[in-house]
Amino acid sequence: MTLGNTSDGLNAKVDQAEPWFRAHLRTLVEHKTVSPGKTGDDDIRAGAEAARRLMQEAGGEAELVECSGTPSVLARFTHPQPRARIVVYNHLDVQPADPRRWAQADPFTMEVRAHPDREWLYCGRGSTDDKGPGLCAVWAASWALQQQLPIDVTVLWETEEEIGSPNFAEVVHARREQLDCDAVIVSDTIWPSDAQPAISAGLRGSLQAILRLRTAGKPAHSGLVGGAARNPVRELAALATAIDGARFWHDGVVPPSADELQGFLRSGFDLEYFKSAHDLHGLETDVPLEIMLRIWARPTFEVHGLTGGHMGPGVKTIVPDEAELKISFRLVPNQDPQALGARLEQFVHALRPDVEVDVSGFLQPYRGPTEGRVHEAIAAALTQATGRAPVTVREGGSIGAVPILADLLGSPVHFLPLSLPEHGYHAPNERFDWKQAKVGMTAFAEVFRRLSA
Amino acid sequence: MTLGNTSDGLNAKVDQAEPWFRAHLRTLVEHKTVSPGKTGDDDIRAGAEAARRLMQEAGGEAELVECSGTPSVLARFTHPQPRARIVVYNHLDVQPADPRRWAQADPFTMEVRAHPDREWLYCGRGSTDDKGPGLCAVWAASWALQQQLPIDVTVLWETEEEIGSPNFAEVVHARREQLDCDAVIVSDTIWPSDAQPAISAGLRGSLQAILRLRTAGKPAHSGLVGGAARNPVRELAALATAIDGARFWHDGVVPPSADELQGFLRSGFDLEYFKSAHDLHGLETDVPLEIMLRIWARPTFEVHGLTGGHMGPGVKTIVPDEAELKISFRLVPNQDPQALGARLEQFVHALRPDVEVDVSGFLQPYRGPTEGRVHEAIAAALTQATGRAPVTVREGGSIGAVPILADLLGSPVHFLPLSLPEHGYHAPNERFDWKQAKVGMTAFAEVFRRLSA
Repeated sequence: MTLGNTSDGLNAKVDQAEPWFRAHLRTLVEHKTVSPGKTGDDDIRAGAEAARRLMQEAGGEAELVECSGTPSVLARFTHPQPRARIVVYNHLDVQPADPRRWAQADPFTMEVRAHPDREWLYCGRGSTDDKGPGLCAVWAASWALQQQLPIDVTVLWETEEEIGSPNFAEVVHARREQLDCDAVIVSDTIWPSDAQPAISAGLRGSLQAILRLRTAGKPAHSGLVGGAARNPVRELAALATAIDGARFWHDGVVPPSADELQGFLRSGFDLEYFKSAHDLHGLETDVPLEIMLRIWARPTFEVHGLTGGHMGPGVKTIVPDEAELKISFRLVPNQDPQALGARLEQFVHALRPDVEVDVSGFLQPYRGPTEGRVHEAIAAALTQATGRAPVTVREGGSIGAVPILADLLGSPVHFLPLSLPEHGYHAPNERFDWKQAKVGMTAFAEVFRRLSA
Repeated sequence: MTLGNTSDGLNAKVDQAEPWFRAHLRTLVEHKTVSPGKTGDDDIRAGAEAARRLMQEAGGEAELVECSGTPSVLARFTHPQPRARIVVYNHLDVQPADPRRWAQADPFTMEVRAHPDREWLYCGRGSTDDKGPGLCAVWAASWALQQQLPIDVTVLWETEEEIGSPNFAEVVHARREQLDCDAVIVSDTIWPSDAQPAISAGLRGSLQAILRLRTAGKPAHSGLVGGAARNPVRELAALATAIDGARFWHDGVVPPSADELQGFLRSGFDLEYFKSAHDLHGLETDVPLEIMLRIWARPTFEVHGLTGGHMGPGVKTIVPDEAELKISFRLVPNQDPQALGARLEQFVHALRPDVEVDVSGFLQPYRGPTEGRVHEAIAAALTQATGRAPVTVREGGSIGAVPILADLLGSPVHFLPLSLPEHGYHAPNERFDWKQAKVGMTAFAEVFRRLSA
């Protein structure tokens, strides 16, 4: 079987599917399914209902699965004598979007632009994270059904991934039987470069925390009390610096194997492309392998914000009365977020006993399989879809649902990444593109064909 | 001459002046003369015009003095054969006020409350900083005029003190002749305690700066770039910590003399009162003399805010693209703000060459006289007004106009402090009180009488 010459006309079908893909992606993007900071579930529920209808129309038996949070969408594309049972996980919820930073007026109105290399760009919040990739899998499941391939594909879309999947275990419990499978495939990760397909073999975990400090009942005049009064912004800045220099959050790290390093080196990672895709003016290092190690295989400490004091324009010379430091860690396989949370609290309280440490968002790191039938099917499918063999890398991000699926279903979780760095996960001007969508539809279809053979 | 038994009935006149004082203070407080962040001059000009009318009605020849900023108010209370010529400086502009942090609905509607010890509290922005003290001096100048005391009193109220007096030198130049005097008296400082009158003999200077860092064109996903991307909030937090620990801003400090230390020890400074007046839950040290040294005689480094990244509720796991650190230093006599600005820039650029250093608000520290005829008149007048001899201390705050007056007029600048720590300079629920107002009116009248004798 060679690229562009399949017996069942898969490539032709994919080529004809652009109007279908564009219309349904538009429907999904234009439902404002923002989960971080959500106050009600109306928008997310409406989006989930739209997704359910779309899966139903694609031939699935689709339903909403309720839980303590917002519902998931589950659709089964089944065969009477399946030779394989696959669950495909994606998520329907998205990050917030500040329209002032977007080129388009409304991040939730999808804009389509022609592009010389990527054919069509689909621009809007959620297009690449994770609605576009999810739609590729639905198309392929529908195709497999039409082809009567002997495979059961269960599509499962969560709606709380961006807030750490707090209720996803409930969903999996509730549909434990329907979700029984040979393997889970997750399509919520990225290639290191636009030219090199990749398979993720690990996710970083994460831990978020807010450190709060109040040192006075009100702000004070820095001339009157400066020097004697504690300054909570200055103290939390010092605490951030101390945490940054501490070793405790590096504990337990297992360096990547020689094979993994080989994979990294062959990954197509390109320094200039990485900088340009993320619009980074500078990096902590300019050595490509060092960057790959830092983003995939090492823990990080990030300061996301330090509020308190004067946050308007200019300088107001008060001594602040309270401050809040927003931080997170990314953890690599073999590190335990819960244990890290306890270490963080110890570390902070040893330096500043009156700092309140509010730890949240424990996401376990994950180490995925790098061999076996499903892995090989994904590798072959990506080769088929792109003309290039994928490399195995890791993923710097975290997906709370992945360790939950692995634990509760007891099935291996594999990755079939479709997004590119330039697509802008969580960033302004997020987009997906038709070239990657074709890869995704083709690759998922190929995976289903191979696993049903 | 003993307290409560003056030949000219001064005490009785002061006692009867409460309605006058209350009415005029209300007029001044209710003009919203906020200078920091001002966009136009209408409110300040209206306040200055009201102040001019009030001085005119009090018998002064009053006028607005225009400059490149908002106008000052100048009023002359003269005698044909003056034996002394005194300029009294106050300022009419005030800090902003956030109504959410005030007990009263509107910080610019003066509320009057009875108080068992302080008789009446006059609550509102600007009541103690610096409208109440200014009004005491106007009353006394008017009284001196009525008494035909052979003294010229020139009252000068600036309207840009809270923004560092950027145009005040112009005002002094423009009225250089009318301002020619034997001494300037400034009433914009505080007593260390409510029970102990004090004379300030030094002001700290100050220097403000904004440090800006942009490391990317947009925020990025911390899973995708975390570890490799620079984080401007983390870097500026580290820079704040480095500056805090550096020695360069301590250069040039001259420790207080043994006499000064004696004054500090007799100043009535009370740790618990200090904490309670400023609503401070804790201090950098609990040793009273150490606190006095820190607030009066040592430079400070303060972080007023660190903006950038996610400033809303919760944690958003982005790597910020830009950040802004708002800092200031207080400097003590013999330190030079301009030189410090240059040192700061060097220090920052040695660590982070791409941090933009925007230095502003140079205020010179000031060392005032602690002997001579005017100093003795002030000390005697405060003793007369309070029954207790004042101590000589320093002031932790900065008044840009003071070094300008000293330099341009060549006259010594003295202080006659009237505010208390509990009055809340720059803080929510600022107030002045009738007990201190009586001290102020009596003391200024006594100073004028003594200097005209």
